[in-house]
Amino acid sequence: VKLSQLGEFGLIELVKKTPAKRKDTSLGIGDDCALIGDLLITTDTLVENTHFRLKKTSFFDLGYYSLFINVSDIAAMGGEPTHAFVTIGAPGKTNVKSIQQLYKGINALARKLKIDIAGGDTVSSSKLIVSITLLGKVEKKHLLTRAGARIGDMILATGEFGGPAARNYELGITNYELRLKESGIIAKSKLATSMIDSSDGLVRSVLEICKSSKVGALIYSSEVPRSKGATVKQALHGGEEYELVFTVPAKNISKIKRKLGKTKLSIVGEIRTRSKGVGVLNERGRIEAVKAGGFEHFK
Amino acid sequence: VKLSQLGEFGLIELVKKTPAKRKDTSLGIGDDCALIGDLLITTDTLVENTHFRLKKTSFFDLGYYSLFINVSDIAAMGGEPTHAFVTIGAPGKTNVKSIQQLYKGINALARKLKIDIAGGDTVSSSKLIVSITLLGKVEKKHLLTRAGARIGDMILATGEFGGPAARNYELGITNYELRLKESGIIAKSKLATSMIDSSDGLVRSVLEICKSSKVGALIYSSEVPRSKGATVKQALHGGEEYELVFTVPAKNISKIKRKLGKTKLSIVGEIRTRSKGVGVLNERGRIEAVKAGGFEHFK
Repeated sequence: VKLSQLGEFGLIELVKKTPAKRKDTSLGIGDDCALIGDLLITTDTLVENTHFRLKKTSFFDLGYYSLFINVSDIAAMGGEPTHAFVTIGAPGKTNVKSIQQLYKGINALARKLKIDIAGGDTVSSSKLIVSITLLGKVEKKHLLTRAGARIGDMILATGEFGGPAARNYELGITNYELRLKESGIIAKSKLATSMIDSSDGLVRSVLEICKSSKVGALIYSSEVPRSKGATVKQALHGGEEYELVFTVPAKNISKIKRKLGKTKLSIVGEIRTRSKGVGVLNERGRIEAVKAGGFEHFK
Repeated sequence: VKLSQLGEFGLIELVKKTPAKRKDTSLGIGDDCALIGDLLITTDTLVENTHFRLKKTSFFDLGYYSLFINVSDIAAMGGEPTHAFVTIGAPGKTNVKSIQQLYKGINALARKLKIDIAGGDTVSSSKLIVSITLLGKVEKKHLLTRAGARIGDMILATGEFGGPAARNYELGITNYELRLKESGIIAKSKLATSMIDSSDGLVRSVLEICKSSKVGALIYSSEVPRSKGATVKQALHGGEEYELVFTVPAKNISKIKRKLGKTKLSIVGEIRTRSKGVGVLNERGRIEAVKAGGFEHFK
């Protein structure tokens, strides 16, 4: 069996059996971040020609984005980013100025969010690689994981969907909004039951919440706000939006809306029993069962 | 200017100015690990055709080694490894069995040392990449950094040098000893003033200690124990040995030798004033000034 047949999520399932389970590991593989004590940790890697093309993406944008996606994971759990570890792989022929631009992009976001670049590694590599491990902190009482959604909860999402897919995923960070402020408000409000970022697509995000929370869901496709030019399919499965997808008991909806003020917020579905699985109510009023979808590596 | 002209150490100098310096960052870029509170963090990345060739290295050995080099960094600061985050980049055509073998290698060492694999990332990539971020814990009173060497201290080293260079750096982990027990003894003894692992070569290791401690050093080349088949140059500059290089005041030498019992231990040099720089006393009794040497990426 090749990786391309198994897929990224198959591989994660395969390797997530860890040899030692320490008592201080509150959350291991299977959420946006690991939780060790009150420390959140996440890691994301970008590889040339897989995630970006140097013809289309500036080194500055690449740096900014590589930190951004990690911040999004910390945010999705209600945490605040603190320390980053940056690994760069690059060919020897790369201009030093380009690498400096890449760090400028990382530093621009790091400065804004008071993140300390505390270490990393530099290696030679035939393709450009940027790998960041980001630490964050969270108060246990404000932690939001993928587990916690309950039957009857509504599924809410910030922002719009399908834009990156409609734009062919060409990486240009200026298009993205970081939902750090919103995630902090949601986490501190204690009105939500679960949260995830939508990096792998809206449907995949709901599937992950359902898997961790042991529930089913119905997604209202007509209620999913589409970015300009995006098809329904792109909005449902496109991914790379870095919006927040979270579940809220019906009685808390108006309160959370008030707290989030002007943030674009949509009710995109509801949590139902596990036995009903995850479905999408399409625009013709029919329910389609979904298994997967969204961006998946190797496939 | 190209990366190949600047070199790895030049690049590290260039990027180590961090945009935010947080109060909880006790040590940032410039040691084997970063220190945040009592948390040690290190990250190391292996790239196909830069660090290993799949024709020569088994997936199991590659996995074991990729964790090993990170453990060595934690050990060099007197810490104990706790949690690992494993990022794998691989082409879609890779056999799933090969990736499982890689994880088996990682898990073999993780199980032995009670390290929890708490997260990671999997991405598609044209070349195989294994990147591990490892957390560890250390008691502040036992912490050993590269800074702390004092004039008159002796430079000690465990084991032998030059073997990996003599064997053309072909990665086969069974040749390596992990110095975790020894580093713990050295750190807890409080008899040493600084420590580093020799991954970048003995001379480079001494240079790093001198840079951080603001001192000079004289290395006795005739006292450096050579692995079978290794030249003096390979022993001095070869690297990839993962031995401990540490400094000890002369009056503590016999005590530390007793504590380390049967571990092969050699006095390979002495710390002198910074103005004298770092020199190697060669086998003809002459002192050669050294600037750099050891393995360096991009060059």
